[in-house]
Amino acid sequence: MTIQVIIAGFKGRMGSTALNMVKEDKNLALAALLDPFATETEIDGVPVFTSKEELIGFSADVWVDFTTPAFAYEHTKFALENGFAPVVGTTGFTPEEIEELIALSAEKKIGGLIAPNFAIGAILLMQFAAQAAKYFPNLEIIELHHDKKKDAPSGTAIKTAELISQVRARQQQGLADEEELIAGARGADFDGMRIHSVRLPGLVAHQEVIFGAQGEGLTIRHDSYDRSSFMGGVNLGIKEVVKREHLVYGLEQLL
Amino acid sequence: MTIQVIIAGFKGRMGSTALNMVKEDKNLALAALLDPFATETEIDGVPVFTSKEELIGFSADVWVDFTTPAFAYEHTKFALENGFAPVVGTTGFTPEEIEELIALSAEKKIGGLIAPNFAIGAILLMQFAAQAAKYFPNLEIIELHHDKKKDAPSGTAIKTAELISQVRARQQQGLADEEELIAGARGADFDGMRIHSVRLPGLVAHQEVIFGAQGEGLTIRHDSYDRSSFMGGVNLGIKEVVKREHLVYGLEQLL
Amino acid sequence: MTIQVIIAGFKGRMGSTALNMVKEDKNLALAALLDPFATETEIDGVPVFTSKEELIGFSADVWVDFTTPAFAYEHTKFALENGFAPVVGTTGFTPEEIEELIALSAEKKIGGLIAPNFAIGAILLMQFAAQAAKYFPNLEIIELHHDKKKDAPSGTAIKTAELISQVRARQQQGLADEEELIAGARGADFDGMRIHSVRLPGLVAHQEVIFGAQGEGLTIRHDSYDRSSFMGGVNLGIKEVVKREHLVYGLEQLL
Amino acid sequence: MTIQVIIAGFKGRMGSTALNMVKEDKNLALAALLDPFATETEIDGVPVFTSKEELIGFSADVWVDFTTPAFAYEHTKFALENGFAPVVGTTGFTPEEIEELIALSAEKKIGGLIAPNFAIGAILLMQFAAQAAKYFPNLEIIELHHDKKKDAPSGTAIKTAELISQVRARQQQGLADEEELIAGARGADFDGMRIHSVRLPGLVAHQEVIFGAQGEGLTIRHDSYDRSSFMGGVNLGIKEVVKREHLVYGLEQLL
Repeated sequence: MTIQVIIAGFKGRMGSTALNMVKEDKNLALAALLDPFATETEIDGVPVFTSKEELIGFSADVWVDFTTPAFAYEHTKFALENGFAPVVGTTGFTPEEIEELIALSAEKKIGGLIAPNFAIGAILLMQFAAQAAKYFPNLEIIELHHDKKKDAPSGTAIKTAELISQVRARQQQGLADEEELIAGARGADFDGMRIHSVRLPGLVAHQEVIFGAQGEGLTIRHDSYDRSSFMGGVNLGIKEVVKREHLVYGLEQLL
Repeated sequence: MTIQVIIAGFKGRMGSTALNMVKEDKNLALAALLDPFATETEIDGVPVFTSKEELIGFSADVWVDFTTPAFAYEHTKFALENGFAPVVGTTGFTPEEIEELIALSAEKKIGGLIAPNFAIGAILLMQFAAQAAKYFPNLEIIELHHDKKKDAPSGTAIKTAELISQVRARQQQGLADEEELIAGARGADFDGMRIHSVRLPGLVAHQEVIFGAQGEGLTIRHDSYDRSSFMGGVNLGIKEVVKREHLVYGLEQLL
Repeated sequence: MTIQVIIAGFKGRMGSTALNMVKEDKNLALAALLDPFATETEIDGVPVFTSKEELIGFSADVWVDFTTPAFAYEHTKFALENGFAPVVGTTGFTPEEIEELIALSAEKKIGGLIAPNFAIGAILLMQFAAQAAKYFPNLEIIELHHDKKKDAPSGTAIKTAELISQVRARQQQGLADEEELIAGARGADFDGMRIHSVRLPGLVAHQEVIFGAQGEGLTIRHDSYDRSSFMGGVNLGIKEVVKREHLVYGLEQLL
Repeated sequence: MTIQVIIAGFKGRMGSTALNMVKEDKNLALAALLDPFATETEIDGVPVFTSKEELIGFSADVWVDFTTPAFAYEHTKFALENGFAPVVGTTGFTPEEIEELIALSAEKKIGGLIAPNFAIGAILLMQFAAQAAKYFPNLEIIELHHDKKKDAPSGTAIKTAELISQVRARQQQGLADEEELIAGARGADFDGMRIHSVRLPGLVAHQEVIFGAQGEGLTIRHDSYDRSSFMGGVNLGIKEVVKREHLVYGLEQLL
C-alpha cells in the first residue's frame, strides 16, 4: 500500500529535498504540496496549495512539515485535526505545545513525529554510547566540524554527554594530579567526561565517542557528509507514524 | 555483601588472571582455589584443592571455571549440584550439554554463565552492529590481527556477519557489474556483506564495522590489546549470576 | 606581482571550478577565457575566445587547461610556443608527446605542469607511504569509495602499491600457511602487499596505508570529499610554473 | 659482514630488550656485555664486564648504551676514543656535551648516534607532518595515552607542533569569533595549532595529526603498543653508524 504524503514547506531546502526523496520511493506518493511562496497550481500532476485551509477534507496519510517555527505548531495541530499523521522537522516547539500535541494525537489515535534531528546515524551513535557507558564508564568525545562553526562543543556532543550522564555516576577521568602544560589540552569537562572540538576546513560534521577499559577500547563514530543524510530519518518517520496511535518527540522513539 | 568465589583452573593463564582480578575487587573474595596441578595447600590463607570432590559441602557463591573441555562439563554440573553459580570460560560444550545444564540450573534455581567470549567490548560491537544494520543495510567489516593468525576472516568477524544476517535481508552491495582488477580486492562475501582481513606485525585484535548510507556513515570499532580485556566480562558475570535463577549461554545474555 | 591566467575549457566542470578559484585568489588574475562552446565575448570584463589562435600575441603568464584529450596536446604546445606556462589537467598524453613537450619547454625556458591528479593530499599520501615502506616493509592498503565505483582496487591504490614496490623487496606478508575460510578475505595481492576495496553509499574517495612493525603501527589516510579538493593543486601549479624553466609531469615534481 | 656489538647497561629493561634484538639478527653479533650490576663473567660465551676500562683494546664495532645520565657522557666519550661507534639511548646530555662529542667523533672519523627517541614510526610521523604542513597549514593534533600519564600535551605532541611551527607561519585556526561553551573544548593552543589530549585506560601511546583543506583531509597516525617498538630504531642505528664518519643527534638524522 502506497503512503500518500503532503509536504508543507516544499520550497525550502529541506522541503525540496524531502520532495525528491518521496518521489524516489515506490512505497510513497505525493498527495499535495503546500508553501505560501508557491506560484504553481500543480507540479507533475500534484496539486499545490498556499494555505493549509485548502487541505481541509483532503485525503492523505502523512503531513511532512519543514516550515518555520512560526507555522509549525499550527500546522501540526491542523494535521492531527484533519487526519494526517504529522512528521515535523521544524524546531521551536515549547514543552507545553509538545505535550498538548501528544495529548491531541492520542485522542485522535493518530501517530506523529516531531524531531529536532533526523540523522539516524547520529541518534544510533548516542544510543550506543549511552548503552556502552554502562559497562565502560571511561570515555572521551571528539567532535570534528568545518572551521566555520562558531560554538564548541557541538550541540550533538553535549547531548551525547548528557545522555551518558544519565546512565553513569560522575567520575573523574585521568590521573588525579594530571597537569595541563598548555591550558585546554584535556578538553572541556562535562560531568567528568572530556569533550574535544576539532575545527578544520574540508570537514563536515563528525563525532567519535572513545571508550577505554583494561586491555581494550571501543569507538563509535558518525560521519555526516551532507543534508541528504537527514532523509533516511524522514523516510523512516513517514513509514512508522502510519502504524502508531500517538505522536512522539524525537526520532529515537521510533528506532 | 562480598561474593565468595572459587576459581577452578587457577594455574592456567586465564585462571591466574582471574585470580588477580578477584583479589583486586573489594566486592569479591577468594573462597577456594582448584587445580589438579596445584602443589600448595593454601595461598594467602585461601585453601587450595586438586579435585572437585573436596569442595562438596564447601560454602561459596560462584564457581569460576577456566579449565579444559575435558573437565568443563563435569565441573559445571558439579557446581550447580553443590550450590555454586558457575561462570565458565572453557569452550567445547555440545548443544545438548548446554541444554541439560540450563535445565538443571532452572531446577536448582541457580544462576550461571557459559561464555565463549568474555570481551564486553567485542560483544557490544556485535550487538550495536546488528542493531544498526536494521537501518543501514549497507556495511562492510574490516578485522585486523597480528600476522601470526592463520585463519581469515576471524571468528568474531564471521559471528558478527551471522548476527547481522539475521536482521537484514540478503543484499548485493557495490555496483552490480563491479570488477576486480586483482582477485580478492572486494574481500570475502558473506551473504552479500564484504569482510576484509588485515594481518600485520604489531597489531593485536581489532575489528571495524563500517555502515554507509546516503550522506552519512557510522563506524563501530573494537580494539583488544591483551588478555586482561576479558576480565571485565568475568567480573560482570560473577556479579550477575548471583542475581539470577538459571544459567545462560553467552555474555550478551547478561548485558 | 599578480599572475595573469588564461583558462582553456572554462565551460567544463573542472574549468569552471578553476575559474572561481582564480577569482578568489588575490595573487592571481583572469587574463582570458577560452572554450569552443562559449557564446559570451566577455565575462566580468575578461575577454572570452573560442579558438586558441585568437590568443596569439596575447599577454599572460599561465595557461590552465581543462579541455579534452583531443585538444590538450595541441593546446600545451601552443601555450609553450606563445610564452604561456601551461598547467594541464587533461589526461591522454602519450609518453612521446610528454617527452616532446618537455624538450620544447626547456628550449623555450618556460615552466609547465601536466598532472593526471591535482589532489595534493593524495600525492603526499603516496610519497609518505613510499618513504615509510623503507623502514616498515609490512603494510596493507585499504581504499574506500562510493558504491557506484566499478573497478577495484582504485587507480590510486594501485599507483600507491607500485610506488612502494620500487622501494621495498617483494615480501610475503601474513603467515606462510594462512588460510582463507572465505575466498578474498585477505584482499588483492599486489607484489606481496594486500589491497582491500570497500564500497559503500555515502563514501566519496578515501585511502589508508597501514604499516605494522614490532610493537608499533603507522597509518596514513587521505579523504577526498569533493572536486574542489583538486584546486589546491592547480593553485600550487600556477604559482610554481612561473618560477621554473621547463615542464614537468606529475604534481609530485613540484612538492 | 657481521657487526660486533657491545651492550652497556644490559641489565636494565631497555638494555636487555636490546640484547635480545641483537641475538635475533643474523647480521649482528654480541661482542661483550657491560653492567656494573652484572655478577656473571659470561653469558652464552659472550664476556661480561662491570667497568668500561676492561674494554680498552677490545675489538668491536658498535657500543650500544642504555645506562643512566650519570654514565652516558663518559661512556660515549670512551666509546669514541676506543674505536667503538656509539648508539646511545640514554637522555640527559647537555648541548655542550653533544657538541663536544660530535667534534670528537669527526676527529676520530667514527659514526655515532645519540637519540632521545628510537621509535621510527614516531619520527616518521613528525617528519611527514612537518612536510604536509607546508601545503596544508590547517591542522590539529590529537594525542591519546593511558590514564596514568600526568602531563598533557605529551612531549611528542609538543615536539611535533614545534617542528610544524618552523615550516608554517603562525595562523589562527577556526572561526575568528568562535566560542567555547565549555572551557577547553578547543584544546591547547600552540602557535595557532590546537592540541587535544585524550587519557583512557587501555590506551598505550598514540598520536594523530589531522590536516584539513578545501574538500580534502590528510591524517597521519602513530600507534605505539610496547617498548619493543624502540628496537627497530636501535637496529637501524647500529647498521647506520658503522657507515658514517661522525656522530649525529636524533634518529631522524639517519632516516
